[in-house]
Amino acid sequence: MNEKGVLVVLSGPSGAGKGTICKALLEKEDFWLSVSATTRSPRNGEIDGKNYFFLTKDKFEEEIANNRFLEYAEVYGNYYGTPKEHVMEVIDSGRDVILEIDIQGALKVKENYPGGVFIFILPPSMEELRNRIIGRGSETPESLMIRFKSAYHEINYVSKYNYAVVNDTVENAVKKIQSIVAAEKCRVDRIKEEILDSKEGLIHEQLYD
Amino acid sequence: MNEKGVLVVLSGPSGAGKGTICKALLEKEDFWLSVSATTRSPRNGEIDGKNYFFLTKDKFEEEIANNRFLEYAEVYGNYYGTPKEHVMEVIDSGRDVILEIDIQGALKVKENYPGGVFIFILPPSMEELRNRIIGRGSETPESLMIRFKSAYHEINYVSKYNYAVVNDTVENAVKKIQSIVAAEKCRVDRIKEEILDSKEGLIHEQLYD
Repeated sequence: MNEKGVLVVLSGPSGAGKGTICKALLEKEDFWLSVSATTRSPRNGEIDGKNYFFLTKDKFEEEIANNRFLEYAEVYGNYYGTPKEHVMEVIDSGRDVILEIDIQGALKVKENYPGGVFIFILPPSMEELRNRIIGRGSETPESLMIRFKSAYHEINYVSKYNYAVVNDTVENAVKKIQSIVAAEKCRVDRIKEEILDSKEGLIHEQLYD
Repeated sequence: MNEKGVLVVLSGPSGAGKGTICKALLEKEDFWLSVSATTRSPRNGEIDGKNYFFLTKDKFEEEIANNRFLEYAEVYGNYYGTPKEHVMEVIDSGRDVILEIDIQGALKVKENYPGGVFIFILPPSMEELRNRIIGRGSETPESLMIRFKSAYHEINYVSKYNYAVVNDTVENAVKKIQSIVAAEKCRVDRIKEEILDSKEGLIHEQLYD
């Protein structure tokens, strides 16, 4: 069977650990990590096409108008987005793509590409989530509480996702994501046409030779 | 989270190798293999409650009337069926149950328990399927052709299943089924309530202590 790749969208509240999991997953699996486009200036050492695709504001808005993003957002006057074309090319070539993104972004990707595999990363407990937010430091008690409440409410969005993975240990979470991707490649919704096609191709030679 | 077990239904055309895969899977995973009930007489060495639950015809029909089977069928004057109660008890205890069954039976189980995981075992090719049917011996060319055509047409039922696993090697097929079961336990449809409940239980102590 000529299998397409799968778009794996890793998302979840801030502090759940999706970045760490994404990094660990890339060490184990030959996923292609989606590169974002942005209008902000490159920082020291950032490479165009690797860290980001750096676009002018005009170019970015042209791409928006042409519907060439899986999702985009404006943050403090700069655009950030996921270019659709690159992702689709890699998927069509049979390689899996991973996209690590916040919840608002993931929901927009789902609208544009519902065939993606949407995985919500959960903290092992709300207590652990609080410890992780505290652990990042440089937070006043007030801003900590705002971040924590925000993460708490974001967990309600889990119902929009296909899968939820508890980040109890990075190793466990990575194994579960590997299982999810392997299982998705066996989903009948995804491969039905290929199964029935490959069967049809064989009927005459097998039944009537 | 207090997880329920999963009902894994292994099914597919005869000759695809579901029996071999089921046996290999039971060597790797602590699944509970569902035991069928039947009205046929025990053969030498068959143990009631292990190989089958041996019931009288009256008792079996009483059980049918009380809707106590996930599926049943009459074959050459004997009843065969999957008792619902045992399966549900094991699932509620958190253990996974495996049920190896033909396509007609699997579709009836799906009507009665759509929360099961329905896996269709495919032969690697129609040619290989033919070789396997021939390999069983004691088939005339005519009965071979009937069996092969029947298996060929049965493949259309794949669209009623959740997953399709190609039995290229038993080892690969078992790995895929293990991934499917692990992934199913992360499906939001299955665990959403538990996630949201465990979150609610923590809000007061975490937000307001």
